[in-house]
Amino acid sequence: MSEKVGHHLAAQRGAILDRLLALLRLPSVSTDPAYAGGMAAARDFLCDRLRAIGLEDVQLLDGGGQPAIYASWLGAPGRPTIILYGHYDVQPPDPLELWVSPPFEPAIRDGRIYARGASDVKGSTLIAVETVGAFLAVEGGCPVNIKLFLEGEEEVGSPSLPAIIEKYRDLLAADAMLSADGGRASTSFPSVSVGCRGIAALQFSIRSAAKDAHSGRVGGAVRNALHEMAKLVASLHDEEGRIRVDGFLDGAMDVTQDIRAEAAALPFDEAEWYGELGAAPFGDPDYTVRERTTVRPTVEVNGMWGGYTGAGGKTVLPCEAHAKLTMRLVPGQEPAAAQAAVKRHLEAHCPAGVALDFQYRPGGTRAFTLGATHPLLLAAERVTEWVHGRRPVRTRAGGTVPITTLFHESLGIDSLMFGLASPDEDAHAPNEFFRLASLDEGLRSWPLLLTELGGLRPEDFPRRARD
Amino acid sequence: MSEKVGHHLAAQRGAILDRLLALLRLPSVSTDPAYAGGMAAARDFLCDRLRAIGLEDVQLLDGGGQPAIYASWLGAPGRPTIILYGHYDVQPPDPLELWVSPPFEPAIRDGRIYARGASDVKGSTLIAVETVGAFLAVEGGCPVNIKLFLEGEEEVGSPSLPAIIEKYRDLLAADAMLSADGGRASTSFPSVSVGCRGIAALQFSIRSAAKDAHSGRVGGAVRNALHEMAKLVASLHDEEGRIRVDGFLDGAMDVTQDIRAEAAALPFDEAEWYGELGAAPFGDPDYTVRERTTVRPTVEVNGMWGGYTGAGGKTVLPCEAHAKLTMRLVPGQEPAAAQAAVKRHLEAHCPAGVALDFQYRPGGTRAFTLGATHPLLLAAERVTEWVHGRRPVRTRAGGTVPITTLFHESLGIDSLMFGLASPDEDAHAPNEFFRLASLDEGLRSWPLLLTELGGLRPEDFPRRARD
Repeated sequence: MSEKVGHHLAAQRGAILDRLLALLRLPSVSTDPAYAGGMAAARDFLCDRLRAIGLEDVQLLDGGGQPAIYASWLGAPGRPTIILYGHYDVQPPDPLELWVSPPFEPAIRDGRIYARGASDVKGSTLIAVETVGAFLAVEGGCPVNIKLFLEGEEEVGSPSLPAIIEKYRDLLAADAMLSADGGRASTSFPSVSVGCRGIAALQFSIRSAAKDAHSGRVGGAVRNALHEMAKLVASLHDEEGRIRVDGFLDGAMDVTQDIRAEAAALPFDEAEWYGELGAAPFGDPDYTVRERTTVRPTVEVNGMWGGYTGAGGKTVLPCEAHAKLTMRLVPGQEPAAAQAAVKRHLEAHCPAGVALDFQYRPGGTRAFTLGATHPLLLAAERVTEWVHGRRPVRTRAGGTVPITTLFHESLGIDSLMFGLASPDEDAHAPNEFFRLASLDEGLRSWPLLLTELGGLRPEDFPRRARD
Repeated sequence: MSEKVGHHLAAQRGAILDRLLALLRLPSVSTDPAYAGGMAAARDFLCDRLRAIGLEDVQLLDGGGQPAIYASWLGAPGRPTIILYGHYDVQPPDPLELWVSPPFEPAIRDGRIYARGASDVKGSTLIAVETVGAFLAVEGGCPVNIKLFLEGEEEVGSPSLPAIIEKYRDLLAADAMLSADGGRASTSFPSVSVGCRGIAALQFSIRSAAKDAHSGRVGGAVRNALHEMAKLVASLHDEEGRIRVDGFLDGAMDVTQDIRAEAAALPFDEAEWYGELGAAPFGDPDYTVRERTTVRPTVEVNGMWGGYTGAGGKTVLPCEAHAKLTMRLVPGQEPAAAQAAVKRHLEAHCPAGVALDFQYRPGGTRAFTLGATHPLLLAAERVTEWVHGRRPVRTRAGGTVPITTLFHESLGIDSLMFGLASPDEDAHAPNEFFRLASLDEGLRSWPLLLTELGGLRPEDFPRRARD
């Protein structure tokens, strides 16, 4: 069935590319109200296309922020229902002066489409849409029931996504989710994503005196909040980067031989990786770089500040210092427990007379893992092997894709990330690009994957009881 | 001789107060170009007054920034020539909303004049000017030759002062300097200042990778610049605040029993002091608070920053971090050597693969001390005892008054700080005030001090060979 669809997509490739370029011209920056027009234009463009390809119930799902786009095709009774996830918003294009061609005037050079959002994630999102369109055009129907869900706030942390999911829970009922965002771990070797680390955040401030003081008048006899902050942050790790926070690792999965083998499966050159980052080798010597960045948790300070930071100098003895911190979590770690462990550590290491204040939302996102025999995973592996002619490796992402955990915990369904973006495409940076070869690959692999999923029954998909 | 002058000043007190209020109405904020008009108005006001009281050679000394005001009376051949130092610029008034009455609309409440610059240092500066005026009006001449020097950049770190002194070296030749800025260590006990700590500064940055990276993708395997900065800053002191920098203390004077006795002479309640600061007791337990803050050196980080410091969060693994640091130095320490010691310490503690970059001007300001039998000091002690009816204690300041060291090193002369400001008058803060009682005290003590100095010969003043 997918063969004809694949031929159709290949024949339509020029028109699809034109539509992608048109979508990339719409500056849908979700974080900046100045781009409200671009957001609305991208929504209109996509809704028009969804109607044109024959999807039904095209509508905006409002959760108080940027609405999500919804559309469905439910003409395959007895077949699985799959949510196809993508997002239509993009990162801000700044700094503009570093772009070779303007971010919202897509330019094709060396087999790459350069534009903001090309890689993240309008390219892969349009592949999903056009795949559905091709099935409807060629076959008059899809192998599975489709619920298309295109978010508008992914690049700002999905603030109203939980509200949307809660409000439209019945509309979004499905057997699994297939994401156009995320997935590929390497530009050179085929891979299928089986999970990602979770995340929790904690911001804290310390205060060592009632007010800033003159460093000459009181220096030597009053605690400097910056010195205290430095001691606290320095206490979180040992010299080799091992986390030194009691209780933080509670519940964390062991890095078994199987996990080690999985992490080692992707060809990976540590020296080359460090060379690209311009960084020296570092980290817990008991683990490889791939293990450190995917199956071991982290505690990282993302921002730290206090005192006078302007031009010149100021002889102030600062009474306040601040830090923002995030943790990456592995399967088995509870976000709230990890936060609590770091909080207890900081409290235990904070000297008498220094006040600690925490600003945080309790909890976070748990790590997500697809079971080793999950039908989504097995289907994706078969399709990837057909397309690449070699068996893909299973990889875990070091980052966090909250949507996978959110759908799992709220709707009870599992997700597979099947995006076509490659990790080197400068997403979030100037000169973001998407490979034309990835467009072609996606137009081959997505019909195959939907066809594979169409061979399954709804009851083949594991389901999580709602929290 | 000074008795008649004192009576004259007491009789003129209402007119002098009016002139002080008029001067305080002129917003002479040196740091902000928006106040250029206020700066010019304050210069005009003072130049007019200097001419009116009979000073000669009234002129502006230009060193490329805000000019200094100069005027002289040199009608006492054979007598010492004394530079009277003050400054006409003030700190910015922000935050305005915290002022009970507007900063440039002086208001008298509870025996205090509330206005920006009242304490620092228009009050004491005008006392010096009016004292000279009274001598000229009553006696037709002063006990000593006078070179009045009123700086316009004290509140911004005196950037062009070295250029002014170099350019007008001959004009500024003198036997000693008497400063209307600085001096009093206590509101309740008479004191005479015998020195202050020196200062040196060092700004440094560290870099742990070529660019910021995604904390999920690389976290756990790349050094976080903020963690490295924390370790470096934490390494500068031990848990009790003792400096742990090899070589930093080289040359520093010993805290002898005499020095300890001097530091203990001023009645001082440590618990009350910490209570006012809202801080817990802290510092090297081998020294008292007075010793820690005056005769022991410090290394203080005044500002530290890196990574994401805005609202919300950003999962960045920062590759850069920055810190601004100043040291307070005691007699015997060389600023350049102290800087070099801290620099070496940071280099030694910086791990391989992390780049350190220093931004600093080599050198700084040495500590300044008046010799125990210095004629300036002995004269000031006699006068203070007469005015207060009790012998003053000798005190050292923890802060730094670069002008004293600059005049010492450039003009070869010693300085005495004989200002009337008290340490509790919220200089640099909202609701700065100056006590009317201090105005009265200054109008008594300054004529006495000039008279005392007039009894000395120029050769009585020690002189330093130029560097």
